[in-house]
Amino acid sequence: MEKKIKPLSVEQAQRIIFKKIKPLIVKEKINIENSYKRVLKSNIKSKRNHPGLDLSSMDGYAVRKRDLNITPISFKLIGEIKAGDRVDRCIQKNQAFRIYTGAPIPKGADKIIIQENCIETKDEVLIKKENKENFIRKKSNDISNEFVLKAPKLINTRDIALLGVMNQRKIEVFRKPKIGILATGDEIIEVGEKTNKYNQPASSKPSIISLIKNWGGDPIDFGIAKDNAIELSKKIGKTNKCDLFVTIGGASVGKYDLTHSSLIKMGFKLDFWKIAMQPGKPMMFGSRKNTFVIGLPGNPVSALICSEIFLKKAIYALQGIKHEDFIISAILDNDIAPSSFRKQYLRGNLYFDKKIGEMRVKLLKNQDSAFLLPFSKSNSLIMIDPHSKKQKKGSKVKVYVLNN
Amino acid sequence: MEKKIKPLSVEQAQRIIFKKIKPLIVKEKINIENSYKRVLKSNIKSKRNHPGLDLSSMDGYAVRKRDLNITPISFKLIGEIKAGDRVDRCIQKNQAFRIYTGAPIPKGADKIIIQENCIETKDEVLIKKENKENFIRKKSNDISNEFVLKAPKLINTRDIALLGVMNQRKIEVFRKPKIGILATGDEIIEVGEKTNKYNQPASSKPSIISLIKNWGGDPIDFGIAKDNAIELSKKIGKTNKCDLFVTIGGASVGKYDLTHSSLIKMGFKLDFWKIAMQPGKPMMFGSRKNTFVIGLPGNPVSALICSEIFLKKAIYALQGIKHEDFIISAILDNDIAPSSFRKQYLRGNLYFDKKIGEMRVKLLKNQDSAFLLPFSKSNSLIMIDPHSKKQKKGSKVKVYVLNN
Repeated sequence: MEKKIKPLSVEQAQRIIFKKIKPLIVKEKINIENSYKRVLKSNIKSKRNHPGLDLSSMDGYAVRKRDLNITPISFKLIGEIKAGDRVDRCIQKNQAFRIYTGAPIPKGADKIIIQENCIETKDEVLIKKENKENFIRKKSNDISNEFVLKAPKLINTRDIALLGVMNQRKIEVFRKPKIGILATGDEIIEVGEKTNKYNQPASSKPSIISLIKNWGGDPIDFGIAKDNAIELSKKIGKTNKCDLFVTIGGASVGKYDLTHSSLIKMGFKLDFWKIAMQPGKPMMFGSRKNTFVIGLPGNPVSALICSEIFLKKAIYALQGIKHEDFIISAILDNDIAPSSFRKQYLRGNLYFDKKIGEMRVKLLKNQDSAFLLPFSKSNSLIMIDPHSKKQKKGSKVKVYVLNN
Repeated sequence: MEKKIKPLSVEQAQRIIFKKIKPLIVKEKINIENSYKRVLKSNIKSKRNHPGLDLSSMDGYAVRKRDLNITPISFKLIGEIKAGDRVDRCIQKNQAFRIYTGAPIPKGADKIIIQENCIETKDEVLIKKENKENFIRKKSNDISNEFVLKAPKLINTRDIALLGVMNQRKIEVFRKPKIGILATGDEIIEVGEKTNKYNQPASSKPSIISLIKNWGGDPIDFGIAKDNAIELSKKIGKTNKCDLFVTIGGASVGKYDLTHSSLIKMGFKLDFWKIAMQPGKPMMFGSRKNTFVIGLPGNPVSALICSEIFLKKAIYALQGIKHEDFIISAILDNDIAPSSFRKQYLRGNLYFDKKIGEMRVKLLKNQDSAFLLPFSKSNSLIMIDPHSKKQKKGSKVKVYVLNN
């Protein structure tokens, strides 16, 4: 019999996931050019100051400020300095060095006059006028050799450049969490297998495999289990090697939704199996020893939205990151009916309205959680809190950006 | 001598890139689970209708509408249907089938009464009240077997699920564009090499390598060339195999900025080499036979921003996609000084202000294009058009979202 239990809110469920999942222990060393979207596991200290010494930030002439009381004035040119050069000669009164962007500032100089303000002759440079800025990048002004990039940190491409300037080629990241994935259902076949009108390809499985990779996980395809307890238990029995095991379908505790009972039989303890959200009410979370389980609903759109809202957070939690969603606000193009006790994630099309310089979002017509064409055309989820009144066209709503 | 030429606007330069770059001819066949962020090259037709036949969208009881004139009413239960079942028996007057989500609708039935509205006894079901909706997903209502996914299309994870439901496991995508990348400069060393205060790691190279991969390209690392014409020409001579060759540094046409002259000497024709943007004024684009070239500025932040604005579009153009930026609007947290003739891309921190339910953006303090720490802390670029007046705190600005 189905027990009457009060479904958890999305936020309660997310908190349980964050509380239960502990970061993996094992780390691995990788090159920074392969570290995009991996999570730094160990603090890392810069091997250098940046800049390494005072540098010119422009093409021009290095001079002493105190020689510039009146302009125009001519200085003697005593040499040329480019990036990478070493210069020991000290600049004296009314002397100048020709200098290029990135070149070290010679001793005694404290200002760069940009070339646009100068006329160079054979041995001299005429400084027509002074510029206000000094155009000197001071040693260590970006980072010092004491600078530490703190772990855990989800690495983006800007961090890779920062690690580059720290002269760190290799970093220690969390090993990729091993994420098993199993589709269930008597009607389910692998995508590409012989099809008839009665069966249905496991369409969300390859999509979730891509998402797992994108969130730093290492997907392990467990294939498909028919709706029978023996087959399910056999698959579930092989999940020891997984940090997290994901099932698709059979989560709604119906007579033939056996995933729930099979997980229990095989020793998993469930923390929750119902969420007050739409789509996605049947959504399980639990664990057995070091293996967590997430049971996604069978409808493809529900499965993919629950992946965004829960699976993503779980995979990042295994890598020590409390992942925050990318939510923005937008003006609603349509009315939205009042909501029930369930938080709604409605498929929408977010766009920049050039005329008014604001973000707008259009509700897509077909919100059926089994239909993929409207979902593939959406780029966002309009978030409507439980027990909300009617949202009127023109009002502001919160939008979850689908950027995968 | 440096020629005085009027720099192009960002938009003019982007138009030239789109006009000049033709999509690659060669395609390859890959599995859909590996197709995230690849570009579909050939139209692909569905192998099936979805749904394959009329299906129940709820757990409940299949009945005939015309038998429901009065409720409550008891119907005779004549069987049970679950997803994947084949049922030939036709439903007759005052009969019902127990039915589960995803199960085919039996002949004669045209409505599902959800289980919450029913009480089941041994051979009968008591329908307490009718629900308004029919809860039937009609055959082909999502896609028909005539549906075609049109190329070119940048594949996201929702498209992968759509391809799944079309029962297409393999798709034809553009082969990955081969993108050579070379850092230049006497002071430049590979990240991780022995460093001293005079030299500098090629910090943007590993970052751009990651970006190239992320945008569907296949990066080829050409290493580093010192600032001398022979070494540069040798490297440039080996770029025939590249669809696009990217240089970092030496682009500003100074005395020691030899990339420009070396490219010309080696037969490249340049379409432009100055853009009215900040950072990134020196930015080259050109081609030799089937190899395009993009010359990025040497300062790491300039190089990375120009990659976002130009290199990204070039790599997608090679894959047949006219890529559009993800721009949103936000409320400015600071004043911004008037702009010159150059379009500004200022490092900012975009965030959702929960109090007012709006997006805000904070200008980061250090905007030096050689400094990576503030850039690594930014998540967006505030876009200021050329010749703009002072932007006041509280006004709306356009923001380029850095999502790599």
